Amino acid sequence: MFAISRKEVARLAGVSEATVSRVLNNVGPIKPETRDKVLQAASEVGYVPSALAQQFARKKSDNVGVILPFVPKVQLFSTFYFSQILSGIGEAAQKHGYNLLLIFRDPAGNRNYSHLFRAQKIDACIMLGSSDSEEERIALAELEREKFPFCLVNQQYSEENYNTVDADHVTGSYEAVKHLITGGHQRIAFINGPIQFSNSNDRFRGYRQALIDAKLPVDNELVFSGNYSRTSGLQLAPELARRIKDNQISAIFAANDRMAIGVMNGLVPFGLVAGRDYGLVGYDNSDGAKIVTPSLSTVTVPFYEMGQQAMEILVADLNKKTAQQQRMTANKVLLPVAFIKRETS
Amino acid sequence: MFAISRKEVARLAGVSEATVSRVLNNVGPIKPETRDKVLQAASEVGYVPSALAQQFARKKSDNVGVILPFVPKVQLFSTFYFSQILSGIGEAAQKHGYNLLLIFRDPAGNRNYSHLFRAQKIDACIMLGSSDSEEERIALAELEREKFPFCLVNQQYSEENYNTVDADHVTGSYEAVKHLITGGHQRIAFINGPIQFSNSNDRFRGYRQALIDAKLPVDNELVFSGNYSRTSGLQLAPELARRIKDNQISAIFAANDRMAIGVMNGLVPFGLVAGRDYGLVGYDNSDGAKIVTPSLSTVTVPFYEMGQQAMEILVADLNKKTAQQQRMTANKVLLPVAFIKRETS
Repeated sequence: MFAISRKEVARLAGVSEATVSRVLNNVGPIKPETRDKVLQAASEVGYVPSALAQQFARKKSDNVGVILPFVPKVQLFSTFYFSQILSGIGEAAQKHGYNLLLIFRDPAGNRNYSHLFRAQKIDACIMLGSSDSEEERIALAELEREKFPFCLVNQQYSEENYNTVDADHVTGSYEAVKHLITGGHQRIAFINGPIQFSNSNDRFRGYRQALIDAKLPVDNELVFSGNYSRTSGLQLAPELARRIKDNQISAIFAANDRMAIGVMNGLVPFGLVAGRDYGLVGYDNSDGAKIVTPSLSTVTVPFYEMGQQAMEILVADLNKKTAQQQRMTANKVLLPVAFIKRETS
Repeated sequence: MFAISRKEVARLAGVSEATVSRVLNNVGPIKPETRDKVLQAASEVGYVPSALAQQFARKKSDNVGVILPFVPKVQLFSTFYFSQILSGIGEAAQKHGYNLLLIFRDPAGNRNYSHLFRAQKIDACIMLGSSDSEEERIALAELEREKFPFCLVNQQYSEENYNTVDADHVTGSYEAVKHLITGGHQRIAFINGPIQFSNSNDRFRGYRQALIDAKLPVDNELVFSGNYSRTSGLQLAPELARRIKDNQISAIFAANDRMAIGVMNGLVPFGLVAGRDYGLVGYDNSDGAKIVTPSLSTVTVPFYEMGQQAMEILVADLNKKTAQQQRMTANKVLLPVAFIKRETS
């Protein structure tokens, strides 16, 4: 059957069978016009060389997809969080001979991750900035059903048995708030990120538990909401300034360093300095936390290692899959975090 | 011919022709075992559905490759330079419906970029951290010969007519050194990066010209070499401290902010403070330059825009290619930079 098709392609393209072989196997120098003619003819008769047919059956691209959130106007790779995770993923990918395919989530909400596997664009997939929405749940359930390997980073769907790499944000937040309480603070405001992220919820749970264990009231009036950007912290400053001056708030715990630094900068025009007039703790231990004046107390999270481990889990899954093992058991990794005291608390 | 092949696949796999169609067109839910059987059978008879055959002939992956340097131990995405360029590339890729395939250069030196096109992994390619080596020149010449679209960022091969997006580092360096001279400095050390990067050479040319125009001697004893890392700046500190105290050096111009900050930190133990005991100018206007104390004078470079423009050039090339235009003319973009005075100079 192959011989017949190749002959047909050669006839249609007006070249020799040897030339058809050379084009389709990418051997030797070939004029672009000749290449185009042969490919055109091959397409017309539906002829594809066996190497490609095998690749099609083998379904292997040697790419691992990294799904990124659509965040308008934010220079995603310049954020400490994404750049660190991506560096960890990249290091492990390089080690195992995979390239990374960066895929931006469709802002319109379409979540057809399975298609990326079916179209052989990727062999496995890491989800960053995943959040709990109906579309996301449906898309992930389809991947699971089709046995396409994927791993979530920093997001959990408690009732689902998916590969997940996360950090212990409950304990991290608990330690941060406990530190403020030990320092004599009783009215501690909390600035959280959007609650569709499980890691925002984790932080709230840690904050809440630290208050309860210290027999302090959990006051919803003290819980604020930002979107993990510096600007969202800055915008809360006037309201926070008023409450600090009214003695309703004596310390602030922010769910990430960017919001904490926004708050800190925003409170300066009100004559309020972190560490002197109020206590402040951030979260992430980003580069910024170390360099700002006063330096920011925070919680350090092993983002780089989280990226590495997500990739390692997928490589292990892919190797199992190759070995025809029937069902992969989900890996759930929870890495420890640590509170770091600096000048703001 | 298709009907016969599909029948053959169905017979071999022991399923109906309709099932073969459903598997090969990815329609509806299909048991993984069935899918595997059909793909196996399709591979055996060399049958590939027309959609794939067309894709093969069309040679379109909708991926743009980004070639990254192999930098051991450096968290690449966490560097201001790469994260900014990548953010710009990503923004434009998203806008035009392309995904990014990140490809790490082989540390062993293999540079088979053409293969990425032939294997249909990418439609176009952006080179970051490219340097002037024999392997790189050969690989780029092959891309050019094969008419595979690519664009260099921040690296030029003067005698070659390649798509290039760069910034005017000659003028930027000239302005930085002129500023130090205007401030009364006559013995200005220069810490450059590796000279296989054309943008290192550009900086040296700017440094040299500013000295010549001010009728100051160009002294090779004042030119030092680092590798663009903070550590490489730090390591030069003892030697620089000795020379500053001997009045052989009164100011330092570093080819990037990371080396400048390394020098600055390394000179503190010697009792030398930038802006007080010696003048210091960095390059890049990274986040670090703004936050360090004293804040670092530097040259701002539009890295984000450079990434965007590289992607736009390739999208234009791909659209021309689709329209069967014969030869693409190379685009050479040179973006302006600007000196920024802060506390260290």
